[in-house]
Amino acid sequence: MTEIKIFCPATIANLNCGFDVLGLCLEGIGDEMIIRKVAEKGIRITKITGADLPLETEKNVAGVAALALLKATQSDFGFEIEIHKKIKAGSGIGSSSASAAGAVFGINELLGRPFTRHELVEFAMKGEVVASGSEHADNVAPCLLGGFTLVRGYNPLDVIRMESPSEIYAVVLHPHIEVKTSDSRAVLSPTIALKDAITQWGNLGGLIAGLYSKDYGLIGRSLQDVIIEPLRKKLILNFDQVKNSAHDAGALGAGISGAGPSIFALCKGQNSAEEVAFAMSNSYLDTGIPFDIHVSRVNAEGVRIK
Amino acid sequence: MTEIKIFCPATIANLNCGFDVLGLCLEGIGDEMIIRKVAEKGIRITKITGADLPLETEKNVAGVAALALLKATQSDFGFEIEIHKKIKAGSGIGSSSASAAGAVFGINELLGRPFTRHELVEFAMKGEVVASGSEHADNVAPCLLGGFTLVRGYNPLDVIRMESPSEIYAVVLHPHIEVKTSDSRAVLSPTIALKDAITQWGNLGGLIAGLYSKDYGLIGRSLQDVIIEPLRKKLILNFDQVKNSAHDAGALGAGISGAGPSIFALCKGQNSAEEVAFAMSNSYLDTGIPFDIHVSRVNAEGVRIK
Repeated sequence: MTEIKIFCPATIANLNCGFDVLGLCLEGIGDEMIIRKVAEKGIRITKITGADLPLETEKNVAGVAALALLKATQSDFGFEIEIHKKIKAGSGIGSSSASAAGAVFGINELLGRPFTRHELVEFAMKGEVVASGSEHADNVAPCLLGGFTLVRGYNPLDVIRMESPSEIYAVVLHPHIEVKTSDSRAVLSPTIALKDAITQWGNLGGLIAGLYSKDYGLIGRSLQDVIIEPLRKKLILNFDQVKNSAHDAGALGAGISGAGPSIFALCKGQNSAEEVAFAMSNSYLDTGIPFDIHVSRVNAEGVRIK
Repeated sequence: MTEIKIFCPATIANLNCGFDVLGLCLEGIGDEMIIRKVAEKGIRITKITGADLPLETEKNVAGVAALALLKATQSDFGFEIEIHKKIKAGSGIGSSSASAAGAVFGINELLGRPFTRHELVEFAMKGEVVASGSEHADNVAPCLLGGFTLVRGYNPLDVIRMESPSEIYAVVLHPHIEVKTSDSRAVLSPTIALKDAITQWGNLGGLIAGLYSKDYGLIGRSLQDVIIEPLRKKLILNFDQVKNSAHDAGALGAGISGAGPSIFALCKGQNSAEEVAFAMSNSYLDTGIPFDIHVSRVNAEGVRIK
C-alpha cells in the first residue's frame, strides 16, 4: 500500500460545560486527504482544493503535524499530501484539526501503524500550533479517537475516549460570518467566579455520568455553560433565538461549537435531529446571513480510510 | 414497626477535583440513631450520647431535617429520636449530615417509605443549615444514596448516584485539631483563574470517567485539586507529609476530606488501604497531635436499618 484516501471528520469542541476539555466526532462532515508514500524524504503538500491554504509544509497544519510524526519515526522515505477541504476554515468545527489528524493518521497507516490512535494525538497537536498558536487537543482527540473524548490533562497528555449512547445526533448550523480567533479569545476573562466554576463542573460531571449511563435526560440537563457562552454569544447574531428554537424543537441541548460561530445541538435520534435542524434553520433565516446546516450521527470511529 | 435502629455512615465530600459536588459514603464509621413512632405529634430528641449537641428540636440538625420531612407528610403522630454520635463534630467526614440523613431515612421507613432515597436528600439538606448556615447536599447525598454521588445542580436539586468499581477503599486520618468553618471558608477566594478551572474540570471528568469505566489508573491520575487544597492545606499541620506518605504507600490519591481537618486517601483493595493507613499514621506521629485513623470500604448502600 503506497497511497490511501482518508476521511477526516469535523468535530465539536467544548460541548458547553467542557470548555477546552470535551469534544465529539461527526460523521457527515469532513475533508478528504490523499497520502502517498514516495522515495524522496520529507513531506510535500502537492495539492489543496476547497480552501486557500499554504502549500509550504512548515506553514501548513497537516504539513507540520506530518513532520512531527516523521521525525519520531526516522523514515528513509517521504510522503506527499493532497488536501481536499470541505470543512470551512474558521467555522468552529475543527477544520485545522481534521487536516492535522488526517495527515498523521494516513502516514501512520502507510508506515504499518507504529503508533496507536491515542499516541497520534500528540503529533496532531503540533499542527494545531500553526492554526491557533497553541497545542491543544480538544478537536484532534475526537477526530482521531471518534465518539466523545475528554482531555484530562496535558502534563503528560491524557486523553480519554468515553462511552456514550449510540443514538446521539448532532446538528451544526454554520453562519457565514467571520469571528476572529483573537476576538473570541478577547471576550473571555482570565478569572471566573468560584461559584460559577462549581456550577460548571457539576454540569460537566453530569454530562459524563449521563454519557456512560446512557441517560439522555441527564445529558440534556447537563448541557449548560454559565462561563463561556454568556461572553461569546454576543459575537454570534441570533444565537439565543437559534438555541431556543433547538430546545423548543426537542434538542437535548445546544450551544456554541468550539470558538464559534457555528451553533450546535445534540439530539436523541435522527428524526429529532432533523426536526431540530429545520427549526434552527428557520430561526436563522431572519438574519439574512447565508449559512450551512448539517445533521450528523456521532462518529464512533473517527478519522478513517475512505 | 414502631422503633428502628439506624446506621448513619460518615462521608467524604469534595474528593479533590469535585469541590461542593462530589462525595462518597463510608462503611466502617458512622453514628447510630434510634427512632420511635409515638402518638404525640412533632419531633423530640430524647437522648444524645457521644457529643455535646442541643436537644431542642429546632436547634438540632436531625430535628430540623425531621421536621421538614414531617411537614411534607402531614402525619397525625410524631417521632422520638435518640442520637449516639461516633463521628466527631468538625472532623470533616459529614458528622452533621449523618444525623440529618439518619433522621429522615428512619422516619421515612416508619412511615412506610412515602419518599425515595433521592427525595429524602432535599429534607436532609434543611438540617445542614443548622450546622453550616447553608443548604448543601455533598455529604447528605452520599449518606442517603451510598457509593459515589454527584450534585449536578441545585435549581432544581439534581443528585446522581454514580457507578464505581467495587474494590475502592478509603483511609481517613482525623487529626484532633479544630479547624473553624469560618477559617476554612475565609482562606478560599471568590474568584479563580480560568486556566485552573479548566485543569480542575479535566480532572473531575477523568475521575467520573474512571469510576464508570472502572479504570483505577485514571481515577488515581484524576484525584488532584489545584484550587482548594493549596489554600486550605495550610490549616492542617503536616498535610503534605501525610499526603506524600499515602502516595508513596500506593494510594490512588489523597487530599482533604470535606473542609478538613481529616485527610483521606483512596486505595485499590483492603490490603493496600491498610498499608496506606499505616504509612499515614507513621507520618502524622511526628506532630505529637492525637488522631484517629479509619480504613473503610466504600459503602454502596448508604444509611440503613441496623
